[in-house]
Amino acid sequence: MWFLDQKDMPDKWYNIQADLPEPLPPVLHPGTGKPIGPEDLAPLFPMELIKQEVSTERWIEIPDEVQDIYRTYRPTVLHRAYNLEKALDTPARIFYKYEGTSQAGSHKLNTAVAQAYYNKQEGIKRIATETGAGQWGSALAMGCSFFDIECKVYMVRISYDQKPYRRILMETWGAQCIPSPSPDTNAGRDMLKKWPDCPGSLGLAISEAVEDAASRDDTHYSLGSVLNHVLLHQTVIGEETIMQMEMADAYPDIVIGCVGGGSNFAGQALPWMRDKLSGKSPQMRIISVEPESCPKITKGMYTYDFGDVVGLTPLLKMHTLGHTFIPPAIHAGGLRYHGMAPIVSHLNNLGLIEARSAHQMGIFEAAVMFARTEGIISAPETSHAIRIGIDEALKCRESGEAKTILIAHSGHGHFDLTSYAKYLAGEITNFSYPEEEVKKALQDLPRV
Amino acid sequence: MWFLDQKDMPDKWYNIQADLPEPLPPVLHPGTGKPIGPEDLAPLFPMELIKQEVSTERWIEIPDEVQDIYRTYRPTVLHRAYNLEKALDTPARIFYKYEGTSQAGSHKLNTAVAQAYYNKQEGIKRIATETGAGQWGSALAMGCSFFDIECKVYMVRISYDQKPYRRILMETWGAQCIPSPSPDTNAGRDMLKKWPDCPGSLGLAISEAVEDAASRDDTHYSLGSVLNHVLLHQTVIGEETIMQMEMADAYPDIVIGCVGGGSNFAGQALPWMRDKLSGKSPQMRIISVEPESCPKITKGMYTYDFGDVVGLTPLLKMHTLGHTFIPPAIHAGGLRYHGMAPIVSHLNNLGLIEARSAHQMGIFEAAVMFARTEGIISAPETSHAIRIGIDEALKCRESGEAKTILIAHSGHGHFDLTSYAKYLAGEITNFSYPEEEVKKALQDLPRV
Repeated sequence: MWFLDQKDMPDKWYNIQADLPEPLPPVLHPGTGKPIGPEDLAPLFPMELIKQEVSTERWIEIPDEVQDIYRTYRPTVLHRAYNLEKALDTPARIFYKYEGTSQAGSHKLNTAVAQAYYNKQEGIKRIATETGAGQWGSALAMGCSFFDIECKVYMVRISYDQKPYRRILMETWGAQCIPSPSPDTNAGRDMLKKWPDCPGSLGLAISEAVEDAASRDDTHYSLGSVLNHVLLHQTVIGEETIMQMEMADAYPDIVIGCVGGGSNFAGQALPWMRDKLSGKSPQMRIISVEPESCPKITKGMYTYDFGDVVGLTPLLKMHTLGHTFIPPAIHAGGLRYHGMAPIVSHLNNLGLIEARSAHQMGIFEAAVMFARTEGIISAPETSHAIRIGIDEALKCRESGEAKTILIAHSGHGHFDLTSYAKYLAGEITNFSYPEEEVKKALQDLPRV
Repeated sequence: MWFLDQKDMPDKWYNIQADLPEPLPPVLHPGTGKPIGPEDLAPLFPMELIKQEVSTERWIEIPDEVQDIYRTYRPTVLHRAYNLEKALDTPARIFYKYEGTSQAGSHKLNTAVAQAYYNKQEGIKRIATETGAGQWGSALAMGCSFFDIECKVYMVRISYDQKPYRRILMETWGAQCIPSPSPDTNAGRDMLKKWPDCPGSLGLAISEAVEDAASRDDTHYSLGSVLNHVLLHQTVIGEETIMQMEMADAYPDIVIGCVGGGSNFAGQALPWMRDKLSGKSPQMRIISVEPESCPKITKGMYTYDFGDVVGLTPLLKMHTLGHTFIPPAIHAGGLRYHGMAPIVSHLNNLGLIEARSAHQMGIFEAAVMFARTEGIISAPETSHAIRIGIDEALKCRESGEAKTILIAHSGHGHFDLTSYAKYLAGEITNFSYPEEEVKKALQDLPRV
């Protein structure tokens, strides 16, 4: 393990917008089709975050108050997977940067703390958000608890029922968590009238949270991935890792991360991408891993689409399977999103990222192997990256190459153990790519 | 946070038997009443552990193979609870050494790894153990997984049913976990015949695991607390903390740990006790905290008793509520044990330790305050130490003294969230000291 002294913790986030070979396509207003301005986002986000969204400054200072909270769990540790390497009998060196020791159990806290801080600075007393599997909702609950902000989380009902531990986490940190659809918003009430037992969806939960925030002056909305400012906050992971890999006298040939909305992957990958863009290491491979059944990068279109299912958000240019696409019920709930962060999509479109997909049974096989060698119980989301890391290490066994592989380990799976039990009992199957559903969803793409 | 570089991780455990002002009373054979010899324990434990049990060498080398596994999660971090201090408005400085980042989530792994190693060295292929709430069983499952030893865990049936996540953890690490009473042993079968729906008890599970181990040549038995060698392995915690407190330019006025069998408390306290015994800091206060409803040190007798409920083990001189005492069903399952480690009992008897007890509602109040300030969801067991730490910090607010308080934080509460939910819903009550039951149990003490 490589620790980093707290005095060496990065005090700036890295903004890749300063170094992109081509600028990001603009975000468009769904009504006018014209680029949106800051005032369009002001009812939902604090101005500092809106500025970060479009900033092209290379380094953005991490406020002291955010650094103080980071210091309750950062720098996180860089591990070398010696036992896994031995079990794979590979000449490859496998490193992983582990975000699971944050109090909320994943990388999500890095942006939750920052978002809570900037909202607090703007006098906001209350934040509304949605959560699917619960990682984001619990991270924001904790972030808000530190800054004494009220937090309301609309949690997709099926997850609310299936994952009571995540809900209890949020309540322990003082947030209110209710199942969506809820009777608290028009969007929720309308749905409950039509379908009282509706299991909910991320898109509907977003609609409820946005409506909640838009209808109250004291309330803002908060998103846990996809947007540029969210990816920015996550770069603290990669900046730490660069220093730690140097301590380990190593440099990655391959960097691997799973992608749902893209923020975990970007947090590790963007700081390394700097070396790739500057010509220092053009040969470095940066690999994103998505579920075989929700393959926005490998099978989706790169086009303008809504960020939510209902179609309330501005239009983002991104890899998408269509905003009305509902992914199959895989166990990696955090990767069940139709779109991809515009920054990640842009880099992929420029040929700077390799995209891979993985099947569910393979990811649990990798997760159990990782648990029995490295000890850590990984989130099913994270296990996508572990799967491809193992595959690359096995290729090294074939070729005899001693490559250095770096895995972005986004979090623990302590609240996903029922999925592990199902895998161990042989009750998990693969979902193939739902081609017909995607074709249908792509017909609903907005016209720009 | 204070990290310790891996090269500074202790390579020796501290054996307080070298420094005791009076030696420990001997362990007695229940049949003869005479001190037992190594041969009496050989069917259950490897000889190296039996030697450690009676060793009076001050420092015992941590084998390289054990250090290698320690290095997958150690050194653990020393935190200062800045946010908690602020919330309490206290001049006290509160530090906590956090063992929850071990893969199994608690300090238990420190001895699980060592015990698995010594068993492997002696050619043992299989280990049987019992577990109550599941912390010990999951730590040993992981330890065995690293050394490729088969592991069978007899888990108290009521916990097996209530805490499925702990069982899945053990299975993920490759162990077999079955509810006790089980049909796999005479002890289990006898009980199931008499009482098919028996909820089980730790004592019965011990009987099953001991019977299992004694009846097979390839199998040993393993215990997660109480015995001298278990406490020895935990001293790695305190030895690290001594170095880290020096880095933080601090020295504790008060050291606090919760006690079930005593190994977590001892792991932090015994290395500091060295300074107390040597005269370097005779004024240092070392405080053990037990549940108000299972108060072996504060209300029990200091006498010879069995380690298990059925009465199969050798007799240990310890603080005990009587081996037939069944503690109330508090949420801190890990502290529901009738006895106390002989070393801790001896030190308490010599007046070197202060003993406190805490009520259940107070410990959850402290746990929620800790979660909302420091972020970490603590195990209910650990929260006993946090409660007393907060109380001492509040006394400092009254007196204006800037004392330095060190809390032994033994693990996270990720699998205890239903208990948090009950507390938040107002469904948790205090259990008072069951005086009559204890009186009755003390009549069952063995005659020596």
